[in-house]
Amino acid sequence: MKRLSRAIGILLILISPYGYSQTFEEFPDPLRNWEQVPAGLNVSIVSIDKRYAKNDVPFVKQKSSCEMTGWKGEKLSAQLLLWSHTNIEQVECTISDFTSPNNTLSANIAQARFVRYVMTDEFGPGCGYRKPEDFPASLSADMLDNIKSFNMPPRTVRPLWITVDIPREAKAGTYKSKIEVTAKGEKTKEFEITLNVQNKVLPPAKEWIYHLDLWQHPSAVARAQNLKLWSDEHFEALKPLMKMLADAGQKVITTNVNKDPWNVQTFDPYADMIIWTKDKKGKWSYDYTIFDKWVTFMMDLGIDKMINCYSLVPWNNELHYNDVVTGKIINVKADPGTKAFEEMWGPFLIDFTKHLRGKGWLEKTNIAMDERGPKEMEATIEFLQRISPELGISLADNHNSYKKYPFIKEISVSADAKVDSADIALRREKGLITTYYVCCSDKFPNVFTFSDPAEAVYSAWYALASDYDGYLRWAYNSWVENPLTDSRFRTWPAGDTYIVYPDARSSIRFERLVEGIQDVEKIRILRKELKGLNTKESLEKLAKLNREVARFNTISPLKSPDIMLYSAKAVVNEVSK
Amino acid sequence: MKRLSRAIGILLILISPYGYSQTFEEFPDPLRNWEQVPAGLNVSIVSIDKRYAKNDVPFVKQKSSCEMTGWKGEKLSAQLLLWSHTNIEQVECTISDFTSPNNTLSANIAQARFVRYVMTDEFGPGCGYRKPEDFPASLSADMLDNIKSFNMPPRTVRPLWITVDIPREAKAGTYKSKIEVTAKGEKTKEFEITLNVQNKVLPPAKEWIYHLDLWQHPSAVARAQNLKLWSDEHFEALKPLMKMLADAGQKVITTNVNKDPWNVQTFDPYADMIIWTKDKKGKWSYDYTIFDKWVTFMMDLGIDKMINCYSLVPWNNELHYNDVVTGKIINVKADPGTKAFEEMWGPFLIDFTKHLRGKGWLEKTNIAMDERGPKEMEATIEFLQRISPELGISLADNHNSYKKYPFIKEISVSADAKVDSADIALRREKGLITTYYVCCSDKFPNVFTFSDPAEAVYSAWYALASDYDGYLRWAYNSWVENPLTDSRFRTWPAGDTYIVYPDARSSIRFERLVEGIQDVEKIRILRKELKGLNTKESLEKLAKLNREVARFNTISPLKSPDIMLYSAKAVVNEVSK
Repeated sequence: MKRLSRAIGILLILISPYGYSQTFEEFPDPLRNWEQVPAGLNVSIVSIDKRYAKNDVPFVKQKSSCEMTGWKGEKLSAQLLLWSHTNIEQVECTISDFTSPNNTLSANIAQARFVRYVMTDEFGPGCGYRKPEDFPASLSADMLDNIKSFNMPPRTVRPLWITVDIPREAKAGTYKSKIEVTAKGEKTKEFEITLNVQNKVLPPAKEWIYHLDLWQHPSAVARAQNLKLWSDEHFEALKPLMKMLADAGQKVITTNVNKDPWNVQTFDPYADMIIWTKDKKGKWSYDYTIFDKWVTFMMDLGIDKMINCYSLVPWNNELHYNDVVTGKIINVKADPGTKAFEEMWGPFLIDFTKHLRGKGWLEKTNIAMDERGPKEMEATIEFLQRISPELGISLADNHNSYKKYPFIKEISVSADAKVDSADIALRREKGLITTYYVCCSDKFPNVFTFSDPAEAVYSAWYALASDYDGYLRWAYNSWVENPLTDSRFRTWPAGDTYIVYPDARSSIRFERLVEGIQDVEKIRILRKELKGLNTKESLEKLAKLNREVARFNTISPLKSPDIMLYSAKAVVNEVSK
Repeated sequence: MKRLSRAIGILLILISPYGYSQTFEEFPDPLRNWEQVPAGLNVSIVSIDKRYAKNDVPFVKQKSSCEMTGWKGEKLSAQLLLWSHTNIEQVECTISDFTSPNNTLSANIAQARFVRYVMTDEFGPGCGYRKPEDFPASLSADMLDNIKSFNMPPRTVRPLWITVDIPREAKAGTYKSKIEVTAKGEKTKEFEITLNVQNKVLPPAKEWIYHLDLWQHPSAVARAQNLKLWSDEHFEALKPLMKMLADAGQKVITTNVNKDPWNVQTFDPYADMIIWTKDKKGKWSYDYTIFDKWVTFMMDLGIDKMINCYSLVPWNNELHYNDVVTGKIINVKADPGTKAFEEMWGPFLIDFTKHLRGKGWLEKTNIAMDERGPKEMEATIEFLQRISPELGISLADNHNSYKKYPFIKEISVSADAKVDSADIALRREKGLITTYYVCCSDKFPNVFTFSDPAEAVYSAWYALASDYDGYLRWAYNSWVENPLTDSRFRTWPAGDTYIVYPDARSSIRFERLVEGIQDVEKIRILRKELKGLNTKESLEKLAKLNREVARFNTISPLKSPDIMLYSAKAVVNEVSK
């Protein structure tokens, strides 16, 4: 027996095309095994937690139905995966009406969007300059495209993202709907959705309490979509993009009061919103036209809780203005605490306060700063309190300033810091906002183009578990040169600079971020209800819910976020019954 | 301009072969871009922290030299990567002598081994039954093969693992050596190794203090290599495999005292080492032939600190024996605390104690148990202390028994538990050993076939940072059905059951595990030296070293283990100067 198997072994070695010297043949690579894939178009319902590689044979357990459960007013997601060994043309997807024995919800509450692949890199050392050749690049399924039909090259994978917006006026109950995927020469594939509408209502995003702040970059839209800056077309293009942000519960309008506050750390500089002019007599005037137009535009979309004005301490401490005498734009270096600083900022702050009061915006406006040294901060805050005490202050901070400046209206701390719940509660009583932020330095939870989609959901659960009021991320749409195809940038991990795409295309990251915020709002409502009921049963439910939430109070969990969320969300659904 | 770009856009859509409906073309997948790979054989030095996918275009920054730094007596690793768009035949690798201005180290201190790909899965839920179709499978570069020549199929990657064993008698200094990679029809590729031999000596593995316990499974070797159980050929095959384990600093001999202690949780049952017989008068006799042969064999290889005997509480509480009356093998269920238990184990323990005393092994022998319930444990320990107080007790424990039974000679706790340093120190004073273990339930740090190679190193640094005496893992070689090609098993994440391969082939996991142990031994020596010197400089160095170590005191680090180790090992090298 032993001798026989040896003889066969030697024979195999001799006849193997590449293996004469190898002692055994390795397994075929399952990711390249396209020949084993059934002919034609393959389609299955898959998890929303996975980004499938574009050219690998996907690992899928065929599934032809899915169950979605949510509240009235909630947005839910599902994912279909398409793959084929051969070329497939004109793939399209339609979703039918949702019907229950007594009610119908129109088909147009649902949409199917083809997921597009964008170049990404990896976390590596996190922050800092990087070149494309320094990190392995790969394609990541992230963008949700707005096209109706798709052609699939052979041996590729294509995800389809399904979104269901449950109307706030829907009747609770169990609905059924059908997804149909068609393609040229292919039999129609059908999938069943079971939609459980629970008898609870999620209020509109404007009423959400979660303090979301994703900084907007309107100039990037003008450049990337090739539109004249601040033109009507520019605002037209901004509308669906910023509407999408309003629908996520954004609370803050990002503005800049002088030139680019971050010394052009983004691909596009932030164009001026307020034009500073010094006349022949040395007198200052300020043109607020763009600032007013932008703020009004955002407020009309429903983003009207705060106006954050960057920055008294730009990253190079430089300002500029039109000088009537020379006809030139003059750059001024003005370090906090210096005479130049007071001379530049003093007159402006007085005028700006007056302007804001006239608009009725004064109470909403903060002078905003981020990640500057403690010394500069001290000089600046002393100055602000002296010159413009009516203006709020907002700070994204990695220096624990919340203890030093307990009056700061809105403070956001780094994810690797922690703020005592008692401090947050104290601030909350005074109407002050405390959030956390992630950026290039945070491996988890984050929303890079390579991040696990569930991390975006986790980020909101982390805020809740840590008792923060919300979440700040520095870049909603600081697009790179070719944002549609390549999310890498000269600094930071890919996708750090934007979470949505040109032409108001959403992303898996953004959809999941909103999902997490919805979860937080639902839990907030459930907690209040259960506490209010004050029965043994309701308090047990509350305790169970709180136990789930508490598990998210870490940025280094022992389990995968998708596994944690799976059980935690099951509890939310159960408690919502 | 805008109109023109739109027109070009429409044109591109019309002429694109697959994209008439797509709004833009995605980037080509960099992992499939074999056409861009330079013709012929490509070779580069790469990191030892990465497992390269077999069929993806590798992301490599061409590097033709590497620097290795270590102590006399230390084993060091490097990795070469080979890849080609076309078929490459007869790849071979040779390494020259290591020469310094005054000295030469023979070429045979180094070896190059082709890394082979084995099927793996993923962590998933960790423990529990699993089927191949439940988890995505992939190929993992893990096994270090013992072949001299390799043929590469087109569009594949092949890693080569370089090992340098610095002789203990080497002179300190900087040596140079050359790696040559040759293949049929290819120009020879040359790579330079700079080997810095530091003026420190790592003692032989037998003298290492790190208490390593990887359980051996001799019967699996007989089955997998098709040899008669306990035959001379079987022991011949065991020799290089167990020598490799001795060279890693293994301290414990794994034995079983009755039938398979884990109710055949492995692919192969553990064959009996002690044959129990009951004669016509009901008198017991025990045949220790195999047990003695195995223990002597292991001791001859240098593994002679402890003999662990599994188990008084096998996982089904069943024993068996030869019954002379019926001529049959009789199974007996004997739960701890019952009369049957005392009747079965009582006579054996008395005879076994006598046998061990005769051999001079009594002080080294522990009755060993793992992961059983507290109640069973209580009854068993009470019984052991009463019947055979001279035998030690060893326990792999997930129930915090170290507090309840402070006298247990060797205890190993789950990685997600923690033992107070004070408790460990107290135990250490009494000569008792405290280690930690990882198994199917631990995502990190672990040595599954898909685990990051640096995790194996991290596992030793974790032991050091947590003040454990060492590390236990339940399976050195519990091979699955086809261990050479497929590391998946019917239970647990792939690779959980073995870390080395048939015919004494090592693995990336095992090499890195030993690397971690070497690090720990070096740090132990450095700490003693620096403390002994007691100068300002030496104490500063000691503090610096300890700061690095302290960062490893967690199983959920915020940084990747390879990044953490990079800086920590740089400090070890610096302090070793």
